[in-house]
Amino acid sequence: MISKSMKKLVEGNSAIRAMFEEGNRLAGIYGAENVYDFSLGNPNVPAPESVKQAIAEIAEKEDPLALHGYMSNAGYEEVRQTLADSINRRFGTGFTARNLLMTVGAAGGLNVILKVLLDPGDKVLTFAPYFVEYNSYAANAGGELEAVPPQTEDFQPNLAEFEKMIGPKTKAVIVNTPNNPTGVVYSEATILEMARILEEKQKEFGTSIYLISDEPYRELVYDGAVVPYLTKYYRNTIVGYSFSKSLSLPGDRIGYLVMPDEMDDAEDIIEGAAVANRILGFVNAPSLAQKVAARCCDEKTDIDFYDDNRKILYNALQEYGYTCVKPQGAFYMFVKSPVEDEREFCEAAKKHNLLVVQGRSFGCPGFVRISYCVSRNTVVNSLPAFKALAEEYKLI
Amino acid sequence: MISKSMKKLVEGNSAIRAMFEEGNRLAGIYGAENVYDFSLGNPNVPAPESVKQAIAEIAEKEDPLALHGYMSNAGYEEVRQTLADSINRRFGTGFTARNLLMTVGAAGGLNVILKVLLDPGDKVLTFAPYFVEYNSYAANAGGELEAVPPQTEDFQPNLAEFEKMIGPKTKAVIVNTPNNPTGVVYSEATILEMARILEEKQKEFGTSIYLISDEPYRELVYDGAVVPYLTKYYRNTIVGYSFSKSLSLPGDRIGYLVMPDEMDDAEDIIEGAAVANRILGFVNAPSLAQKVAARCCDEKTDIDFYDDNRKILYNALQEYGYTCVKPQGAFYMFVKSPVEDEREFCEAAKKHNLLVVQGRSFGCPGFVRISYCVSRNTVVNSLPAFKALAEEYKLI
Repeated sequence: MISKSMKKLVEGNSAIRAMFEEGNRLAGIYGAENVYDFSLGNPNVPAPESVKQAIAEIAEKEDPLALHGYMSNAGYEEVRQTLADSINRRFGTGFTARNLLMTVGAAGGLNVILKVLLDPGDKVLTFAPYFVEYNSYAANAGGELEAVPPQTEDFQPNLAEFEKMIGPKTKAVIVNTPNNPTGVVYSEATILEMARILEEKQKEFGTSIYLISDEPYRELVYDGAVVPYLTKYYRNTIVGYSFSKSLSLPGDRIGYLVMPDEMDDAEDIIEGAAVANRILGFVNAPSLAQKVAARCCDEKTDIDFYDDNRKILYNALQEYGYTCVKPQGAFYMFVKSPVEDEREFCEAAKKHNLLVVQGRSFGCPGFVRISYCVSRNTVVNSLPAFKALAEEYKLI
Repeated sequence: MISKSMKKLVEGNSAIRAMFEEGNRLAGIYGAENVYDFSLGNPNVPAPESVKQAIAEIAEKEDPLALHGYMSNAGYEEVRQTLADSINRRFGTGFTARNLLMTVGAAGGLNVILKVLLDPGDKVLTFAPYFVEYNSYAANAGGELEAVPPQTEDFQPNLAEFEKMIGPKTKAVIVNTPNNPTGVVYSEATILEMARILEEKQKEFGTSIYLISDEPYRELVYDGAVVPYLTKYYRNTIVGYSFSKSLSLPGDRIGYLVMPDEMDDAEDIIEGAAVANRILGFVNAPSLAQKVAARCCDEKTDIDFYDDNRKILYNALQEYGYTCVKPQGAFYMFVKSPVEDEREFCEAAKKHNLLVVQGRSFGCPGFVRISYCVSRNTVVNSLPAFKALAEEYKLI
């Protein structure tokens, strides 16, 4: 009796749940410390101590009616201004509170902006590999997602294919850099070329094409990598940010959209986003989390911890003969499966108590995603298992 | 460039904003204390002191990874079990954690359950007057809302019309009791008859029709009124609850869905709701607010404060000759406009610095909504203005 579209998603969900349960089953047999679960993107660096202090102080000092009451659907004005100031300091932009809308995480923000932009039948482009829930986000708003095929040698976006795939119905493009699942940061050259193509296609079709930058991993970069701030390269850019990873607050559901004044139809989009926040049922981003984000937005998570995990794992996998683009950001690496069907490789890995995610879950078969937001012990103790698996596939 | 459906909603929103700005303008001229704003449903009783303590203790004691990390999309198991136990104690039901899904307020919950249930073209029935955003919630999931015309003498639902309007495409019915905007509580006799009609229509069409009970005002009742717990009257009932009013936490966005095991397709609906929570972008209800709700779910807000506002205002309006069904719950009263077009009455009220909402915003022209979740001073000081307005319309 549930809807047909949900029926399909529930079936897909059962596969994820089955994997989760398999992890629990293995942990029951071998002990949790002997199961190496690299399947989840849940930060394991705790939120900074300042978050705890901020919560305690806000709860203690703020008027409960102001702290727990409704505010503007866009969020508290002073929170938005504080965050705009922080962005401006860091990236040389010129935003004000008006350009920001506080959202229920980045996922909430993406749903809001797609609801504002899409008419039924509109297309949204993204680049494989990609977070597959983009499919649902586009469909929720009556649109349809199309994925540009991957460029597997470096996992920079395939811009030649991209250019061909843009059509008159292309309303939005979603990019995710640093990328889940590859950890790749799109270079400035890539962004410049992407912007050039978009400008040209806008002219060709007489349309506005909005570039939506999904940036939950912006702060998680290594080796001094620079993540270009996309509003500076292309006028019709909207940024979707989240504090889930930068402050390790995924459960709190707090993020924001940046909607620049320079974009086409800025006024309607900004007002529309507040209305969409309401009618999609978010209403507003959680009030306490808004205030915590404003206080702690310049705090840093323990990047070094992730970086060390990254180096240990990447170097070991290289040594064992695996093929993988070295990740510059996020906490994922995307490893080439030694056999064409990566599901077979995932099954073989499981026999070594290694849990990794099949690449087809990101629209990119033939690879597997390893999340290294896990304990140091998990990383270190998993290495013999990765080695044994490599030997099994004669990579060494 | 924004979508056509959003364009319309943005235009509607401008009307609301215009009213809000008019309130500010009047406050600027006459002083805020001389403007009687009865237009908003924002609780003005602060959250109980125990909420503050709960936040401080949870932030202090809980492991930050558990407090701020992702949990199951349905919410923390122990939170859901605690809330299920509380419901069971109060209403003699037999729910477990499995039957509850924590949501981003009641609005989030309604969007989740409609996403699970509706195929394109499905119909959702509700009873006028009603919260107009139900239109958007149904449309978000590809369905269409139809409102049963009001029964204005008592504002109990018009069940004769309801029976005629149910068709083979009717997938869900939304009820809201205590009701926004009338303050009416649906009687047990009403619920029994509604359940009988639904059972009969399910047989007639060979379908399942889900009754969705939107209950943000459940705890706000007066004069000993009893709000029947609907799962006990009709098997295919889903409850959408919110702590926005019961604990004065609307900004925190915390509520839950109750999905009984006895309903048709329970397993799919329960799993589907968790998936829908994720793919709609909520992901999970805010983690800290979940834990606060579990600790404070048996706390009571200051009902007496609202009740005194209700009595003062209702008695005065009666005395001045206004016509209004005496509200038994929520913090609204729905007053008959002395002229057919209530927009004219709203304008006349504004000249006395009285801000009330036109009934057509709730699908019921000819009435206005007065929200009495305001300060005692606002209520008391507004009485001469209501009286003068009554004299203008020769009600006295």
